[in-house]
Amino acid sequence: MSLTSPTIDFSSPQERHDRLTVAEPLALDCGVSLPSYIVAYRTYGALNAARSNAVLVCHALSGDQYAGPETHPVTGKTGWWTTVIGPGKVLDTERYFIVCANVLGGCMGSTGPMEVNPATGKPWGLTFPVITIADMVRAQVKLIDHLGIDTLFCVIGGSMGAMQVLEWTASYPNRVFSAVPIAGAARHSAQNIAFHEVGRQAIMADPDWNNGDYYASGRGPERGLSVARMAAHITYLSEQALHRKFGRNLQDRRKVTYGFDADFQVESYLRHQGNIFVERFDANSYLYITRACDYFDLAAEHGGSLASALRDTKARFCLISFTSDWLYPTPESKAIVHALNAVTANVSFVEIATDKGHDAFLLDEPEFFATLRGFLDGCARHRGLAVP
Amino acid sequence: MSLTSPTIDFSSPQERHDRLTVAEPLALDCGVSLPSYIVAYRTYGALNAARSNAVLVCHALSGDQYAGPETHPVTGKTGWWTTVIGPGKVLDTERYFIVCANVLGGCMGSTGPMEVNPATGKPWGLTFPVITIADMVRAQVKLIDHLGIDTLFCVIGGSMGAMQVLEWTASYPNRVFSAVPIAGAARHSAQNIAFHEVGRQAIMADPDWNNGDYYASGRGPERGLSVARMAAHITYLSEQALHRKFGRNLQDRRKVTYGFDADFQVESYLRHQGNIFVERFDANSYLYITRACDYFDLAAEHGGSLASALRDTKARFCLISFTSDWLYPTPESKAIVHALNAVTANVSFVEIATDKGHDAFLLDEPEFFATLRGFLDGCARHRGLAVP
Repeated sequence: MSLTSPTIDFSSPQERHDRLTVAEPLALDCGVSLPSYIVAYRTYGALNAARSNAVLVCHALSGDQYAGPETHPVTGKTGWWTTVIGPGKVLDTERYFIVCANVLGGCMGSTGPMEVNPATGKPWGLTFPVITIADMVRAQVKLIDHLGIDTLFCVIGGSMGAMQVLEWTASYPNRVFSAVPIAGAARHSAQNIAFHEVGRQAIMADPDWNNGDYYASGRGPERGLSVARMAAHITYLSEQALHRKFGRNLQDRRKVTYGFDADFQVESYLRHQGNIFVERFDANSYLYITRACDYFDLAAEHGGSLASALRDTKARFCLISFTSDWLYPTPESKAIVHALNAVTANVSFVEIATDKGHDAFLLDEPEFFATLRGFLDGCARHRGLAVP
Repeated sequence: MSLTSPTIDFSSPQERHDRLTVAEPLALDCGVSLPSYIVAYRTYGALNAARSNAVLVCHALSGDQYAGPETHPVTGKTGWWTTVIGPGKVLDTERYFIVCANVLGGCMGSTGPMEVNPATGKPWGLTFPVITIADMVRAQVKLIDHLGIDTLFCVIGGSMGAMQVLEWTASYPNRVFSAVPIAGAARHSAQNIAFHEVGRQAIMADPDWNNGDYYASGRGPERGLSVARMAAHITYLSEQALHRKFGRNLQDRRKVTYGFDADFQVESYLRHQGNIFVERFDANSYLYITRACDYFDLAAEHGGSLASALRDTKARFCLISFTSDWLYPTPESKAIVHALNAVTANVSFVEIATDKGHDAFLLDEPEFFATLRGFLDGCARHRGLAVP
């Protein structure tokens, strides 16, 4: 076994995020109200005088608010979306005011299962209420209010981020000028739920999970969380990408060892992905956030009709999918496009040809960047923003 | 948590399989020799006087020798391939002599990690040598010799069974009259290795695995094995099949519970698959057999050329793949067809349109049965067997 066992303290003296404390209740979909809550966030660039250049970036399952060109306080790596965010990039920090918040239920400062419940003085653990994508967005709304922004120029995100984008346009139809749901879906499929359930069972099978009460022990379910991450990571890559990157290549050896070490590069890679994930992510957060994705079904929230859900939106949409994404394949995006067409929304749709799989939105994909740039520049002109 | 913890004793007073003890060494690919070994097997039907009607059925990763129309001694269910094997069925037990052996490394009576090492009087556990698909076939050859069969009328199998079929035709080119590799591949892909590695890590992360030494404890790594099975099971079904069978349907409830119980039918189904698997399968066997699959690369065994590997075969081939099988997709079978064409072998190939995924070969798939029947009847005529 090469799986590491880090401590559970993900805080770091290098943390640079702001924490908005909302001292009013948040009524959650599950029926529980959080008496108060914290939204941890980062911003990049400056809000203009008209407050019309704000872009909300919504992160995916395993992401956080450190999206931009800076060093992540825990991993020491650069922000997760610096392919897109930065000076002169598609989300140009010299033109836009970029906001990215850690989701409710997350583990990078926003209220979630590893944070302390003020009522008990102890970490929430499994007493934290189950939250939904809509709850995440409700918390983000308070942050946007706090920042003095009425209408967001753009709400954008990939994967679970795309779900938040859709929820924004459905629930706050007048506050979104443009919306970019990337590699997403309006509801989690049976296969998606299945993979999430495998990850949760891997965590819950780890005795160190201890029914979610492990923060005081100094020893969390790192082995289970690592297995969950390994399984999920396969779904983020295409079969072609795995073949191209690794094939059947051996790891630092010329022949197989006839044993259970990581003979193959793909095994070594996956173990590494598992190991580094547990150093920055909380297992209970993983349970809650996967559950929020599973529960997401935008049509079901609106009487079974996706068109009804999106009926009132004023946003201009650009939907993007990737040909080799088998986790959120193109038909999921097309179903959203159909619904938007049914309510005569302003919508464009691009399927990008790539072999990189679901993770393509995080990678260097020039056609993806060109698509985003073209759409955002057009929206900026309509919004009266300067376009170079 | 609803995962059960059965005991580790899979033996049953209902066992009906024969055990061939081979009292001579088996030289394994890893360089180790087993001084002696056992091959547990079942037969259905009768060998004819000419000994020309024998069919060897090769089972898949989680299968065993109970393939035919009888009750499995542990599960109480019917054999795993009664869609195909039985009176009047494609593998007609009134015409053919069907042989199915538990693979070397298995856990239904053949020598494997849960069996006792005669040299120590204790279960092998992780001291069992790592075996390969070729080793499995070497053991099967001794069984076929023992049964007095020179040339097998047919060697047939799906998934890992298809690998054994290919190994038979490559290593014993004169002993196979016809060969049917179904939903298989000539080498395990990076994605296949990745999924197997997740399963192994899930098992090895379970403290009850205890480095493979758990037989005396009465408590094995059932939680880890269950997670491994759940992850694997997703790969056996297509996204379409999961959607058709389960969609987002809830399990025995009208609304979600905002918790981590199995709200969705697909979750309940997967947990059930995990639970019943640990009642009949040994975790160490799972490690060894997945490893054998990972190591399988028929071309690599023959200087990198698949055509070279199959150069001497005299068999008539029928390769079958399924459109929705994403674990061993059609191009894997086509690569074998190309190699067989290159050596002017007698080969036919059929891709069956189905949404059932990899497991289609185990299910009710009329076009699949018709294809098998047509091919086998043609071979039977050439072999001089009576065809109704």
